[in-house]
Amino acid sequence: MNTPNHYILTWQCPDNTGVLAKVSQSLFEHGAFITETSQYSDPYTETFFSRIAFDDRNLTVSAGEFIEALDDLAKPLTMSYKLRNKADIPKVIIAVSKDDHCLVSLLTKWKSGVLPINIVAVVSNHQTCQSLANWHGVPFHHLPITADTKAQQETQILTLMKETKADLLVLARYMQILSDDLCQQLAGRAINIHHSFLPSFKGARPYHQAHERGVKVIGATAHYVTANLDEGPIIAQEVKPINHTFTIEQMVHMGHDLEATALSHAVRIHAEQRVCLNGDKTVILT
Amino acid sequence: MNTPNHYILTWQCPDNTGVLAKVSQSLFEHGAFITETSQYSDPYTETFFSRIAFDDRNLTVSAGEFIEALDDLAKPLTMSYKLRNKADIPKVIIAVSKDDHCLVSLLTKWKSGVLPINIVAVVSNHQTCQSLANWHGVPFHHLPITADTKAQQETQILTLMKETKADLLVLARYMQILSDDLCQQLAGRAINIHHSFLPSFKGARPYHQAHERGVKVIGATAHYVTANLDEGPIIAQEVKPINHTFTIEQMVHMGHDLEATALSHAVRIHAEQRVCLNGDKTVILT
Amino acid sequence: MNTPNHYILTWQCPDNTGVLAKVSQSLFEHGAFITETSQYSDPYTETFFSRIAFDDRNLTVSAGEFIEALDDLAKPLTMSYKLRNKADIPKVIIAVSKDDHCLVSLLTKWKSGVLPINIVAVVSNHQTCQSLANWHGVPFHHLPITADTKAQQETQILTLMKETKADLLVLARYMQILSDDLCQQLAGRAINIHHSFLPSFKGARPYHQAHERGVKVIGATAHYVTANLDEGPIIAQEVKPINHTFTIEQMVHMGHDLEATALSHAVRIHAEQRVCLNGDKTVILT
Amino acid sequence: MNTPNHYILTWQCPDNTGVLAKVSQSLFEHGAFITETSQYSDPYTETFFSRIAFDDRNLTVSAGEFIEALDDLAKPLTMSYKLRNKADIPKVIIAVSKDDHCLVSLLTKWKSGVLPINIVAVVSNHQTCQSLANWHGVPFHHLPITADTKAQQETQILTLMKETKADLLVLARYMQILSDDLCQQLAGRAINIHHSFLPSFKGARPYHQAHERGVKVIGATAHYVTANLDEGPIIAQEVKPINHTFTIEQMVHMGHDLEATALSHAVRIHAEQRVCLNGDKTVILT
Repeated sequence: MNTPNHYILTWQCPDNTGVLAKVSQSLFEHGAFITETSQYSDPYTETFFSRIAFDDRNLTVSAGEFIEALDDLAKPLTMSYKLRNKADIPKVIIAVSKDDHCLVSLLTKWKSGVLPINIVAVVSNHQTCQSLANWHGVPFHHLPITADTKAQQETQILTLMKETKADLLVLARYMQILSDDLCQQLAGRAINIHHSFLPSFKGARPYHQAHERGVKVIGATAHYVTANLDEGPIIAQEVKPINHTFTIEQMVHMGHDLEATALSHAVRIHAEQRVCLNGDKTVILT
Repeated sequence: MNTPNHYILTWQCPDNTGVLAKVSQSLFEHGAFITETSQYSDPYTETFFSRIAFDDRNLTVSAGEFIEALDDLAKPLTMSYKLRNKADIPKVIIAVSKDDHCLVSLLTKWKSGVLPINIVAVVSNHQTCQSLANWHGVPFHHLPITADTKAQQETQILTLMKETKADLLVLARYMQILSDDLCQQLAGRAINIHHSFLPSFKGARPYHQAHERGVKVIGATAHYVTANLDEGPIIAQEVKPINHTFTIEQMVHMGHDLEATALSHAVRIHAEQRVCLNGDKTVILT
Repeated sequence: MNTPNHYILTWQCPDNTGVLAKVSQSLFEHGAFITETSQYSDPYTETFFSRIAFDDRNLTVSAGEFIEALDDLAKPLTMSYKLRNKADIPKVIIAVSKDDHCLVSLLTKWKSGVLPINIVAVVSNHQTCQSLANWHGVPFHHLPITADTKAQQETQILTLMKETKADLLVLARYMQILSDDLCQQLAGRAINIHHSFLPSFKGARPYHQAHERGVKVIGATAHYVTANLDEGPIIAQEVKPINHTFTIEQMVHMGHDLEATALSHAVRIHAEQRVCLNGDKTVILT
Repeated sequence: MNTPNHYILTWQCPDNTGVLAKVSQSLFEHGAFITETSQYSDPYTETFFSRIAFDDRNLTVSAGEFIEALDDLAKPLTMSYKLRNKADIPKVIIAVSKDDHCLVSLLTKWKSGVLPINIVAVVSNHQTCQSLANWHGVPFHHLPITADTKAQQETQILTLMKETKADLLVLARYMQILSDDLCQQLAGRAINIHHSFLPSFKGARPYHQAHERGVKVIGATAHYVTANLDEGPIIAQEVKPINHTFTIEQMVHMGHDLEATALSHAVRIHAEQRVCLNGDKTVILT
């Protein structure tokens, strides 16, 4: 084996004695060469979360046998895990409406190698971002939506995800509310950016709400999509001080950077398998 | 006149043409020596806000005549103003329950000369902070409260404010909700610290709410007290990133610093007459 | 006059009595309709800075006469001023090397109308960003540079600025050090982004320096270019907490957003004539 | 055993295969009930850092035998470790000059149970803080210092540390520079607060330096003391945006909160054995 394969193992289970010992011992016995480890034991839910990166330079068994051993280990520990060859980066579809600042950020970071994802399509209910997507060599799908065609349009998105084998749908200022059904089908696989520091200012026009309330700090929140609007598990939040001189327009403009930063950060750590769901919350294993 | 008197003039009025010209011209004509000016013209409410600090080293009229001229100017401009000799620092009463971190911060900053206020009393529904207040030489009033005695206790607070000629009531983690009546009587003269970045997590146990929601940023908000709980005009907000490893206790502890910082900042800028009410919001003239 | 012209007047002078009164009185007398005012009186340098936005809907004189009156006012006050029709937005040339994140940010914000500038050219010592500039419809000039051709290349930049009547050169991660001579010719007209919170980590590879030092916060600084490397007046700084797990690469990646945010903010407020030079420092009139 | 004893084990060693497995296996075999684990593998120094909190409710051996097993494990791994009963909280001496804001913060947090330390003495070259220390029931030692008596005064501090069995010296705005010799004797056992975001503005009057440079962000840095002034490993940094209107005095006042926050945070995580030295840097195991 000349060039080692790199793997990412993320797992969680009830926090019983010896959990970490058993897993790390198993990895050790099979010759996994660990390069990164991160754990968290949640005292509230008594759940153990762990992310271990390793390579197979010294692996004493085949990949298949390794997974079998992992399965044997997982069952008695009631452990759920995700093991991935680091080279198999997630396939991502980005949904967008008219504002392109989050899309630009994702495409630029992806192109420059910062985001370990593969952007396989951009979908939009408008055509505004078509040439931008195309310039980056990404297929663009114009999927207009009306009250009558909502179910049909969502089916098109799902079909596209299946066809492209997409692992993740990123709502990069996509101004449509997903149906409960779609939310459930994409549980843990759809990330949205909301332009406020949630739970403040859910719903429409959050900067207008923030201006109305007179807050001294604005923010943006990247979160997993759930059927409860803007209530999904929070992955990342960015905030910034403002003052009374900020017009709504200035808040919107300054907010663009907060949104792009929070969203691309959330997508990166999701793609690196650093985000674990812990009920309605997230554990970020850095 | 050997040592000049310093004055702070804060005023607001409908934003008509020439407002700034008329006021600054009037100050100039009477020989006011301006040391600080700050203005804001709110395009939403079409209101003009201004704070001008000046001294009387070159004043060509008496203080009384100066005020007369100001009154003459104010009427046609529908201008409301507050003129104060800078040396007449506001008298402040601090209300507190058991937690002393905000009280400590205010007393310490006051003693070291950072806060241009005169703390004339500490009132509390508990006795926990008595020795702290006394050590700083501040009279402590134990005003216990029950459902039955609430009206009476609030009367005691108001009486104390009158007796001490207090200009401001600071709720420094005072865990009682003021009655609507008291809120109205103290409109613009009572500042509260709430331990969340409002409007998120109003009401009781905001850190517990924040933990439950899984936010990645916590905060504290200093605001004027109004009859709508935690809905008053925001003066200052402090925020800080957290992560999933923070227990509720750690959030509480880290929050102490945010609360003390936001509250003492709000009290300072209020005392320096830098805070103007603009409907349900504030304009901070720095 | 159907649609009013909007003007921005930014001025500074020694802080003598009546300065604000005289200027606002003059504007008032000539019928200037003021929409924004911001002042600052620096107690250290005893200089008065002011920015006034107004329109000519009620102007009682011609624009030419208005400027004459301003000149008459300026001389006795030793006042320097810049008056601009708001519609005459500054022409900007962006210099870039290989990294495109700051260029992308400026082009995207410009295209979406957030930045009140006119980007007339992109210059680069590499060809990496050519297609990006062209896609945005901006002329791209490849100006390679060697030790031998540095003077000649800088002349090409200056010539281009003259030909395009550019008001501002923005160094958007342009990895060449400008000669002292060019710095002086562009004093107050060239903005650079440095990828550290200056004055920490001047010069080459600041993220490597930051990693070496083990700081817990990284940053980016937008500043005017001067002959003293990374010592020019600071316009804007962005910072962000990090921890020991950040590799240099992660710091570089996270830094991209800080740099783009700080630079585009600096360019915006410069273009809005909100930045005044105060010796080696800046006054930002918001 | 009715109430379990809680232990904190912090260790580091060269990052060889199986390190985590061996240690966690050993803990598991001896019945340690793990409640917190945090690891970091530094790819630059190839060092493994770990902090494990556990209790002895299921421990199958005596504490003495457990330590023997740990010693046996440590040697072949070239591992250094610190094992502490959590109840044996560190004894701390605080050194202070005239400014009391950091001392107040430490004493208040300590009294309210936030800081797991035992403050055994306050030493000062002035008498300003005597009554404050005494009010908190902490012995105060006035140790004046002159150029001639510096060596002798430092000996007094060291003697006091020995007599009180102090583990940590906290310089809470102590305005004396420790001798190289004392720095070396207290390596890793002395924490200083510097009132700038290091490495900017080392040495005297950092807020004056910051004002002179015109930075848009100020900060405070808590770090271990080393013989190179203000060059020691950084534990925590706090920063805050400012603008041109801030006078030096306002920067000083606002800085007080940054300093107190950074220092008390650093003392807390040091006391919880979360801070590891990694050359000239720190690893914080949260």
